Amino acid sequence: MTSQHPSDQNDNLRHKKDAFHLPEGVIYLDGNSLGVLPKHVPGRVADVVTEQWGTSLIRAWNSHSWFDLPLRTGDRIGRLIGAPNGTVVACDSTSVNVFKVLSAALSLRPERKVILSDSGNFPTDLYVAAGLKDLLAKGHELKIVAPEEVEAMLDDQVAAMMLTQVDYRTGRVHDMNDLTRKAHDAGAIAIWDLAHSAGAIEVDLLGAKADFAIGCGYKYLNGGPGAPAFLYVSPDHLDKVSSPLTGWMGHEAPFAFDLDYRPVSGIACMTVGTPAILALSSLHAALDIFEDVDMADIRAKSISLSELFIAEVEARCPQLTLASPRSPSERGSQVSFRFGEGYAVMQALIARGVIGDFRAPDVMRFGFAPLYLSHQDIVDAVAILADILDTGSWDRPEFKTRAKVT
Amino acid sequence: MTSQHPSDQNDNLRHKKDAFHLPEGVIYLDGNSLGVLPKHVPGRVADVVTEQWGTSLIRAWNSHSWFDLPLRTGDRIGRLIGAPNGTVVACDSTSVNVFKVLSAALSLRPERKVILSDSGNFPTDLYVAAGLKDLLAKGHELKIVAPEEVEAMLDDQVAAMMLTQVDYRTGRVHDMNDLTRKAHDAGAIAIWDLAHSAGAIEVDLLGAKADFAIGCGYKYLNGGPGAPAFLYVSPDHLDKVSSPLTGWMGHEAPFAFDLDYRPVSGIACMTVGTPAILALSSLHAALDIFEDVDMADIRAKSISLSELFIAEVEARCPQLTLASPRSPSERGSQVSFRFGEGYAVMQALIARGVIGDFRAPDVMRFGFAPLYLSHQDIVDAVAILADILDTGSWDRPEFKTRAKVT
Repeated sequence: MTSQHPSDQNDNLRHKKDAFHLPEGVIYLDGNSLGVLPKHVPGRVADVVTEQWGTSLIRAWNSHSWFDLPLRTGDRIGRLIGAPNGTVVACDSTSVNVFKVLSAALSLRPERKVILSDSGNFPTDLYVAAGLKDLLAKGHELKIVAPEEVEAMLDDQVAAMMLTQVDYRTGRVHDMNDLTRKAHDAGAIAIWDLAHSAGAIEVDLLGAKADFAIGCGYKYLNGGPGAPAFLYVSPDHLDKVSSPLTGWMGHEAPFAFDLDYRPVSGIACMTVGTPAILALSSLHAALDIFEDVDMADIRAKSISLSELFIAEVEARCPQLTLASPRSPSERGSQVSFRFGEGYAVMQALIARGVIGDFRAPDVMRFGFAPLYLSHQDIVDAVAILADILDTGSWDRPEFKTRAKVT
Repeated sequence: MTSQHPSDQNDNLRHKKDAFHLPEGVIYLDGNSLGVLPKHVPGRVADVVTEQWGTSLIRAWNSHSWFDLPLRTGDRIGRLIGAPNGTVVACDSTSVNVFKVLSAALSLRPERKVILSDSGNFPTDLYVAAGLKDLLAKGHELKIVAPEEVEAMLDDQVAAMMLTQVDYRTGRVHDMNDLTRKAHDAGAIAIWDLAHSAGAIEVDLLGAKADFAIGCGYKYLNGGPGAPAFLYVSPDHLDKVSSPLTGWMGHEAPFAFDLDYRPVSGIACMTVGTPAILALSSLHAALDIFEDVDMADIRAKSISLSELFIAEVEARCPQLTLASPRSPSERGSQVSFRFGEGYAVMQALIARGVIGDFRAPDVMRFGFAPLYLSHQDIVDAVAILADILDTGSWDRPEFKTRAKVT
């Protein structure tokens, strides 16, 4: 008989755990990196492969509405991030989508030359911004400041403020409403990366008046490894901006095969090439699980899990130092602890079925996906972590060899 | 008992047909648009979904070498197009890859301002070129001429000649060796789109000294709907060019999470975001079928099928006019015929199980994938086409209603 933590009895998301394929003996605290497979997804993907592709073949573009799949998937994601129908599309990777929205943002502020971001942004966003700046060769500057300095750096030179809402290392949350308003007060465009937000915390893009957003399909949305990303354009800008990647799927009439590009109106103008149907179908199917869920319930449970995790670790693992904000309102759905030998400890944890991950130089990350984690999982995970630390069982060569992907 | 065309008896690729899931009652002449599902692919995709993602979860990046999948898939494609290992990567869409290679090409010829292409190029290539030109705002001109005029337009203003080798409408083949040499003689960079070439005709990128190439994973390579595309950079340029889309997968050390971008050496520098593992796995698996095949055999059978098709159509369907070059050496693996009511005829054909497609204003396209078509299929398909034309059974309202995707 397994024990059950008292908080699990009042958990109104408890039944959702059964919808996921959780490997035997694993407590998965890495849903912020790659979400767990929903049980119904293999069947749905198999149907797309064997029936839609295999049997309908080219006819499936019409008979199975493949053409609209990026928009249909986008609308499902939109519901989770406060975006109205027709403002979100699922396509390409987050990195490619950063390129599109940053280019669009800069086109709205041609006189300004500063792209403002912070050192807590996920590096690919900064890389893409640097690449775009170099490509444009118009004298833009990419200003990367500490997260707490962003507000003070908003001035009349800033064209676009581009931030990831939830810091990938510490889980620290930017105040989207506040910073967006201050960006607008300074005349800047606000771009939000929701990679660690979508499906994890409450987001209200429309309410916050965010101008653009991008995010990831394979973390809390459980779309599968390398799932298509998403992209949001505020209704205020939809008819004023264009994509720098002018592929045929963003054309007004792709099957007219005109020689000249005319962007289609609406969010589809941000699509580029032929949609990745297999990957999109997996993401679209995975989103079924969110259909009857309120993001407020997810957020409440996320906080409950995270608070329990911090309390348990601080009580049982004094060797570790909290790297995340202590206040739950300032944290996303992850908690990080610092430890000099964090890499080896994480490998030892994984070897015992508790899967989190590690970010250099010393950050052990633990993500809490409320749809498939229980409070008892948290208690059990910390018991194993405490045992590893107390016994020093992490101190073995096999736990110290760095893998290619960490 | 089904009859068998005499040419099928000497067909050394005949056994390959059994490797594909061909729907009952269908003769599929649209492999140039979406290739047929190989029978082993559903099992392989299911394994990736259920075992790799479902059970290994985040650990699969190392245990199943997900990280290298774009390169491993690229090498398999490289073998089919005369590209050495380490020069091809599978990633993103063809459109996105056009953007990367054209940007790289222009960076090699900064003093020149002309992008030369032709009206037979697939429109998305032209759209992307126009978008890049506008984005750069450096006074580039996109010059689109008739296919037969390309050679004459090569002068010392041309930075890049960007052509699709096989015309998507007529199947007309550009002479890659000859045009690449002439482009180089004029000091221009040569970019080849192999969307309708890879897996269909013999291509020798290295021998032709092509500078860059891109192409499609879902046509003759049978990677599945919206499969990742591919991208080739000549070994001569690999260490001289960079991608304008500087995502973390192109970084020298993506998991160091540095704030500054430093491109990795080699073809991986052309990758951008997290690889689409489900879609890439399907493409990688589909390429198994080519492992023991010689492209010369595929080309020989393609010509045999195409020649038979033209002979049969011209003998039995005098209403149609050949839109493709008559000489097989000037044609890819498709044949097109013009007919004013071609759209309705194609719908009538599809209703009877012969699947080709239609390109406005009047082109009926028929693609010949030698791995899963027999000569008897060709004879049977033309018999149905002749019947539809002779009886006028295409002349019904339901065949004239244009579908969203044609």
